[in-house]
Amino acid sequence: MTIRNKASYDNKQKLVDTIKVARGEKPCDVVIKDVNFLDVFSGTFKRGDVAIYQDKIVGVGESYDGAQTIDGKGRYLVPGFVDSHVHIESSLMTPAQFERAVLPCGTTTAIWDPHEIANVRGVEGIEWAISQAEILTMDLFVMIPSCVPSTSPELGFETSGATLTAKDVAKFRGHPNVLGLAEMMNFPGLLSGDQDVVNKLFEFKDYKRDGHCPGLRGRDLNAYGVAGIHSCHESTTLEEASEKLTKGIHVLIREGSCAKDAHTLLPLVNSYTSAVLGLCSDDRNPLDIKTEGHINFIVNLALKQGAKPEDVFRAASFGPAKMYGLEDRGAVAPGYKADVVLVEAKSNWRDGFDIVSVFKDGKGTETAPPSNQGLRPQSKGSVPNLNMGPVGIEDFAVKSSKVGEVKAQVVEVIPAQIVTKKKVATLLVAEGKVREDLAKDVLKIAVFERHHNTGGRSVAFVSGFGIKQGAIATSINHDSHNVIVVGSSDELMAKAVNKLLEIDGGIVVASAETTEELACPIGGLMTEKDPDYVSAKLKGLKALARKIGCKLNEPFLQLSFLALPVIPALKITDKGLVDVEQFALVPVLVD
Amino acid sequence: MTIRNKASYDNKQKLVDTIKVARGEKPCDVVIKDVNFLDVFSGTFKRGDVAIYQDKIVGVGESYDGAQTIDGKGRYLVPGFVDSHVHIESSLMTPAQFERAVLPCGTTTAIWDPHEIANVRGVEGIEWAISQAEILTMDLFVMIPSCVPSTSPELGFETSGATLTAKDVAKFRGHPNVLGLAEMMNFPGLLSGDQDVVNKLFEFKDYKRDGHCPGLRGRDLNAYGVAGIHSCHESTTLEEASEKLTKGIHVLIREGSCAKDAHTLLPLVNSYTSAVLGLCSDDRNPLDIKTEGHINFIVNLALKQGAKPEDVFRAASFGPAKMYGLEDRGAVAPGYKADVVLVEAKSNWRDGFDIVSVFKDGKGTETAPPSNQGLRPQSKGSVPNLNMGPVGIEDFAVKSSKVGEVKAQVVEVIPAQIVTKKKVATLLVAEGKVREDLAKDVLKIAVFERHHNTGGRSVAFVSGFGIKQGAIATSINHDSHNVIVVGSSDELMAKAVNKLLEIDGGIVVASAETTEELACPIGGLMTEKDPDYVSAKLKGLKALARKIGCKLNEPFLQLSFLALPVIPALKITDKGLVDVEQFALVPVLVD
Repeated sequence: MTIRNKASYDNKQKLVDTIKVARGEKPCDVVIKDVNFLDVFSGTFKRGDVAIYQDKIVGVGESYDGAQTIDGKGRYLVPGFVDSHVHIESSLMTPAQFERAVLPCGTTTAIWDPHEIANVRGVEGIEWAISQAEILTMDLFVMIPSCVPSTSPELGFETSGATLTAKDVAKFRGHPNVLGLAEMMNFPGLLSGDQDVVNKLFEFKDYKRDGHCPGLRGRDLNAYGVAGIHSCHESTTLEEASEKLTKGIHVLIREGSCAKDAHTLLPLVNSYTSAVLGLCSDDRNPLDIKTEGHINFIVNLALKQGAKPEDVFRAASFGPAKMYGLEDRGAVAPGYKADVVLVEAKSNWRDGFDIVSVFKDGKGTETAPPSNQGLRPQSKGSVPNLNMGPVGIEDFAVKSSKVGEVKAQVVEVIPAQIVTKKKVATLLVAEGKVREDLAKDVLKIAVFERHHNTGGRSVAFVSGFGIKQGAIATSINHDSHNVIVVGSSDELMAKAVNKLLEIDGGIVVASAETTEELACPIGGLMTEKDPDYVSAKLKGLKALARKIGCKLNEPFLQLSFLALPVIPALKITDKGLVDVEQFALVPVLVD
Repeated sequence: MTIRNKASYDNKQKLVDTIKVARGEKPCDVVIKDVNFLDVFSGTFKRGDVAIYQDKIVGVGESYDGAQTIDGKGRYLVPGFVDSHVHIESSLMTPAQFERAVLPCGTTTAIWDPHEIANVRGVEGIEWAISQAEILTMDLFVMIPSCVPSTSPELGFETSGATLTAKDVAKFRGHPNVLGLAEMMNFPGLLSGDQDVVNKLFEFKDYKRDGHCPGLRGRDLNAYGVAGIHSCHESTTLEEASEKLTKGIHVLIREGSCAKDAHTLLPLVNSYTSAVLGLCSDDRNPLDIKTEGHINFIVNLALKQGAKPEDVFRAASFGPAKMYGLEDRGAVAPGYKADVVLVEAKSNWRDGFDIVSVFKDGKGTETAPPSNQGLRPQSKGSVPNLNMGPVGIEDFAVKSSKVGEVKAQVVEVIPAQIVTKKKVATLLVAEGKVREDLAKDVLKIAVFERHHNTGGRSVAFVSGFGIKQGAIATSINHDSHNVIVVGSSDELMAKAVNKLLEIDGGIVVASAETTEELACPIGGLMTEKDPDYVSAKLKGLKALARKIGCKLNEPFLQLSFLALPVIPALKITDKGLVDVEQFALVPVLVD
């Protein structure tokens, strides 16, 4: 991977012109007068002018004249924020709409692992993702998904939309917007020297190789480091994150919509560490981005927990920029990209800050960025996103020859976490079929294969949703993105799935009386609608989810992670229940 | 420039093997037991084992078994030091001998600007420098000299051995040991948009471009930053260094033999800045390396000034490694190069530390490194280093038609600085010749062109040496490395120069009775002799210099910088006196 230097110019004349502007011999384009700009090198705010010419900062401190003058009023100017690890698909929007949501939050750079569209559309999905970088105002970099599908196809744990070999992913190296290999979730494979994992790591040996290793500690964590992994965004305790940092695994502090680690991990941020930490959103829905914010939300959380602004703003910008070889950004200094955020501190930094304006490449972004959506990912001819037939109540039967009672393994959802617990529940058998138990909050959950029309499906039990009368179905369902549905009855589950078929993917909540839905025509994962539309839709979906009794704050995201067989402890795929700790398919009924 | 990743392997099997070793499934090569290793990410020392396999660190913290076990005894283990900017030529030794001197000091990586040999031998000199990297145990990286000669040939300020165009330097890009363009000393040229400077900066736009801008401040410093310069090692005040750092110019804190800035600049080192600072030796003689140390000496100075070891050891390793894209080193963490230094803190860190042992690529360096010298730089056929004829007393005449007295511009040497002052002295004229004035310490100084046998020479006056009866001559004389001589009389100056001719370059001190000399057969700059030999020779030279009355601690280094017409204020070349502030040749006699 080539280092992206600061002060890079297309031609020599631009270099000469910019030198003149910096010397004050030619006017600059924009001067932000009298501002406290963050010096990410020394760790202090300095007061003075910040001068911008074309896409770069040309002067800091000294007074300048420019075509446009902005009164900084002694406010603070910080480098644009970097989302160091994001699956844009989790915003349910295309990158062009994602930008509309996050650029006003100060996020000027995002490092995207297009893992979801890659699982659905394979190589074509990644090509589409990379093509999106070209139509945006913000800078979008792509990490090439390392684990599609999440588990080795030979294991037969799940049916994915695509399988990407080392050869498939290697061909994306060298594209200027590709920084490396995305999160190596298959850490058991890495530790055992799995050939496909080793091939991928080796193909990307001169690139950044992101990690994903929840709970990995001790010698196994050392082994993860010697494999070349440079980051992890999956720490959930301070001890775990500290050990990773000590071992050279850069910690990306995550605040998604479901996985919320910031409160726990932010004490890690200090003067010393701020150069080697990053902040990230991973999976964050548009409603949270709209109401709380994006990377700026994490910075605000940190300030409220007592972090120094000089430290946390560095971890939000310079830290991840350096980490990913993006040496052209992350500082308010001459030659750096004019990606800057003008902020107003509340009466006290501990109360947080508000964003006044955002500049990307020297241009103000007060007006909405262009809504060019680019091309859609190439469709598979006439094949719909949901390549499966309608379902009926018979598809939800869990048969048992037992009489009276039976013991079943149950996936236990933990609010705001993507790991689950496993438990055993005693359930009634009636007419040869095992019944859900609404009183005990043990519901049916089912997954339908949707990529190849194989008719594959599995049904099991889940607790934690609390649904009393209704069902939730979605085609957004990590990582294989089959159709997953949870509900209070076979009828309402079938209703939800068939509605999802009608809209060709997205999210559906069904009650006895009505349905709410968000259609996601792009791979069954994303819509081209704008952030306001999506937020409003999500609000409606969430309201109906609450109405049918669901007690989770993030029912759709939590449902979306129940089919991911690399996150402990018990998950369900189209092939059945997967005990992630045993790393094996296990029966639903245990006696 | 390609990022050098940690955990890079020649082949996949090595990757798989190393994973096994890190997991404890295979024994490692070396275990340093019970050591306090520096965590450069969190800023703390952690106690435990550090395991090494082949050339890499494979485990930190956990207990390991290895073929060799070293009892760390609770001592401290820090990353190998990086000399972030050095002219190895100033050690008077070849790289192979330089390594013998500095590797025991813990310096495992050096970033070499082979500026001197390039000035003497041009492209061939750089080719030789790069070839040296291959024969060493330590890692040697090369920055390609940007300013050969130091001033534009059209100015006619000096006669150099070679002239390097943008095309000449560009051809070295892409070599794995070449990190970029060396110190851009021609900052006036940069600021005025000089075409050759712009061409060179542009050719290296994807590489690191080092700076050199003593005293540059304000808007001009901003301009230097927008030109892409990323570092400077020439700050002499804390304010100057602070401004550079704020403006994104990484500060390299220098402690050479002549230019000693560490004491002044070390207060810059703290938890925040230690990630973005470096330490360097620039020009350091073998005697100082032997008696005081190298980068370890600067670290010791910092500790004595109250710096925290966690901070200054980071600035000595991780900081510069990151700065130069050397991401495979600078940390004691799995996957990083096993370039580590075992140190013993004195009873208190404030009293400094001693080096116990040094490991390079996992191997102990207790025994002397191999003394393979590699090839000599290609000689120019039968042409000697000193391509000039013998000199006589008539060559030192400064003629004047005045009677009695005359006013002369005098170069005033400042002890331990490479900048000079200019002053005017009244001197006697006898028999049409201006005389030196030993009582006022105004001596003659002369430069003879030695590359092309042009017969070019100039004579002027200097104060500050204090020589009473004797002369010092050298062919090491930045940057053009012509022959420079200072002395108490024309006779002794001629004696010193003719002795220098006899040994074909090096350093000579002549008294009325005797001479001492160090021969430097490689370009008239370096010897292939070992550090002990060179130190002993230097001691002898210095002793005789003191005996002839010289009061400077570093007479040879100070003399060596008197011909460098880009360092203020007044310098002398083979073309005459150069007023650096006016940037013009000026007459010796002013009335």
